[in-house]
Amino acid sequence: MFDYRIERTDGLARTGRMELPHGTVATPCFMPVGTQGTVKTLTPAELADLGAEIVVGNTYHLYLRPGHRRVHAAGGISRFMAWDRPVLTDSGGYQVYSLAALSRVTDEGALFQSHLDGSRHLFTPELVVEVQHALGSDIAMCLDECPPYPVSRPNAETAQGRTTLWARRCRAAQSAETNLFGIVQGATYLDLRRRSAVELVELGFAGYALGGLCLGEPSELTREIVAEVAALLPADRPRYLMGAGYPEDIIAAVERGVDMFDCVLPTRNGRTGTAFTSTGRVVIRNAKYADDFTPLDEACDCYACRTFTRAYLRHLFIAGESLGPRLLTLHNVRFFLNLMATIRQAIARGEFLHRARAFLSKYRSAEPAEEP
Amino acid sequence: MFDYRIERTDGLARTGRMELPHGTVATPCFMPVGTQGTVKTLTPAELADLGAEIVVGNTYHLYLRPGHRRVHAAGGISRFMAWDRPVLTDSGGYQVYSLAALSRVTDEGALFQSHLDGSRHLFTPELVVEVQHALGSDIAMCLDECPPYPVSRPNAETAQGRTTLWARRCRAAQSAETNLFGIVQGATYLDLRRRSAVELVELGFAGYALGGLCLGEPSELTREIVAEVAALLPADRPRYLMGAGYPEDIIAAVERGVDMFDCVLPTRNGRTGTAFTSTGRVVIRNAKYADDFTPLDEACDCYACRTFTRAYLRHLFIAGESLGPRLLTLHNVRFFLNLMATIRQAIARGEFLHRARAFLSKYRSAEPAEEP
Repeated sequence: MFDYRIERTDGLARTGRMELPHGTVATPCFMPVGTQGTVKTLTPAELADLGAEIVVGNTYHLYLRPGHRRVHAAGGISRFMAWDRPVLTDSGGYQVYSLAALSRVTDEGALFQSHLDGSRHLFTPELVVEVQHALGSDIAMCLDECPPYPVSRPNAETAQGRTTLWARRCRAAQSAETNLFGIVQGATYLDLRRRSAVELVELGFAGYALGGLCLGEPSELTREIVAEVAALLPADRPRYLMGAGYPEDIIAAVERGVDMFDCVLPTRNGRTGTAFTSTGRVVIRNAKYADDFTPLDEACDCYACRTFTRAYLRHLFIAGESLGPRLLTLHNVRFFLNLMATIRQAIARGEFLHRARAFLSKYRSAEPAEEP
Repeated sequence: MFDYRIERTDGLARTGRMELPHGTVATPCFMPVGTQGTVKTLTPAELADLGAEIVVGNTYHLYLRPGHRRVHAAGGISRFMAWDRPVLTDSGGYQVYSLAALSRVTDEGALFQSHLDGSRHLFTPELVVEVQHALGSDIAMCLDECPPYPVSRPNAETAQGRTTLWARRCRAAQSAETNLFGIVQGATYLDLRRRSAVELVELGFAGYALGGLCLGEPSELTREIVAEVAALLPADRPRYLMGAGYPEDIIAAVERGVDMFDCVLPTRNGRTGTAFTSTGRVVIRNAKYADDFTPLDEACDCYACRTFTRAYLRHLFIAGESLGPRLLTLHNVRFFLNLMATIRQAIARGEFLHRARAFLSKYRSAEPAEEP
């Protein structure tokens, strides 16, 4: 079950509704990352309260642990993690390259050793589709080859060609009820990106992702590629920029017609003590917050901001108390979900660029010295 | 502000109500431990939902970090941690002996080096009372000398005598609004215990604690000492057995007239993966739970038991996900608070021994092989 309808447009930016087996998602959306079947530190009840409508799981991780058959026996990934809303699973292509000891990538698939126990596995396009089917993902992603940044043109070209080959095999292997997204690759080579987009669109996917970006390349280049690729994708299909997490990057991509985002930034930064606030990033361990009895973000309505002071949150981090990471994660996820709600509202009112500029001007006003 | 009223008795067991500056506490009560101004992994909202009416903070820890003056500036420990109910602070005597590098204990006080930064500090009875006053504790504890188990009689006698000396100085130093509890010491020597109780009762405290127990001595001996000491304490003052955490120990102490309990057991065991359930302890990492899609405890109404399966909870622990420790802590605290509610109800109905036996018979029925 998959239905995507665009509701409003404002320039290239658009709002839409995506109907999935486990529920409806308003776009543009941010999807908190729950790699191992849990958005770190948070309960599903909290995620729902924060306004999350879909989370991201990871095929590589869930395949290795607890195993897709076990998740299937539990009734699928949503049921297993007690999240009664949609889950998108990344194919694990990125993790095979970044986490596992990669033995060999051929057209057949990616042979790797588990980062957990060294066991050997072969990810083929067919297996990755089968695993995601067993997981009961609302949206499954094709296996792709995701080179690092920077990468030589010959290597980028090989990876792009293989990604198309694998996308074709994923498409052939998928069941009727699988909602499969293709992943556009091509590194930072515009012609490869265009070729990838055209080849994938020919295969006809439920939606299209841009992979292999936000890996450290200049943000101007990211934006150029996003604009080029988005223009080649069907207007009536959702577009997903994988791994984009900074508010300014999300806004720039929405402006270019992107509908879906995921990133570990709010959760990972929350755990390490950096909060995203309406006036910029706050590194909560900073000594200047030791006696700051004001909320983390005056403009935020989350439980952490309504309840605790910066001094207390700092104390939790300094004392190594896990409530600290939990509360900053909660706040950061709320911040990103609020940002997306603001974006959707601005688009609906035809004020996207105006509101985006106002947000960024305030967001960039503070704490430049603490930016990492 | 301190008022304690006994409501019902059943043998030596009794229920009561303790009125404190930040609220009312029904006894017998279990006080979750929030050493550093947070009950590890839980929010104050969750604690209140679980039914906690009072938590325990620690003078030693809060004095060192974030500092009692800072907590005072924040409006006291309850306000600082956003817990709008009572807090009892332990004096830190036990921590000085167990955590710090102890330099010298004399009648003057305990000279120690911080476990955090090696800085040198002298805890005197007067300072400990002053620090707890600054923290705004609903109940403050006297500085005591708490020897380990086992300890020689001469050392136990010295510690008991010094504990009385310090109790007298704490009593003299306290302000009118401080609700101060004396701590009975004397190790496992019944005559020293009796002497300690008599000497403290002469000083006249708001309530009386039994310290230096539950340190590994045989539980029969603990019970004997508790019975002897409780009989010497004024019937109309609350009695607090420090550090008793196993359900069977709590029940045995209630039977002997004890009203208050605290222990790190539910929180610490929760974090390390052991759950207390109505049918005994569950070590959730055990492989036999890998495909167990039933709740942690069928008889429990907590969020973890209502929402997740043992298989999922096990997965969280195996995968090192902090939601696991959080959910088992939540459950364990609920289990202990439920146990206390059951005890209070049983006393009120004159069925204490009967209900206690039924509980223990079911509790002890399962999982003997996994008991630590």
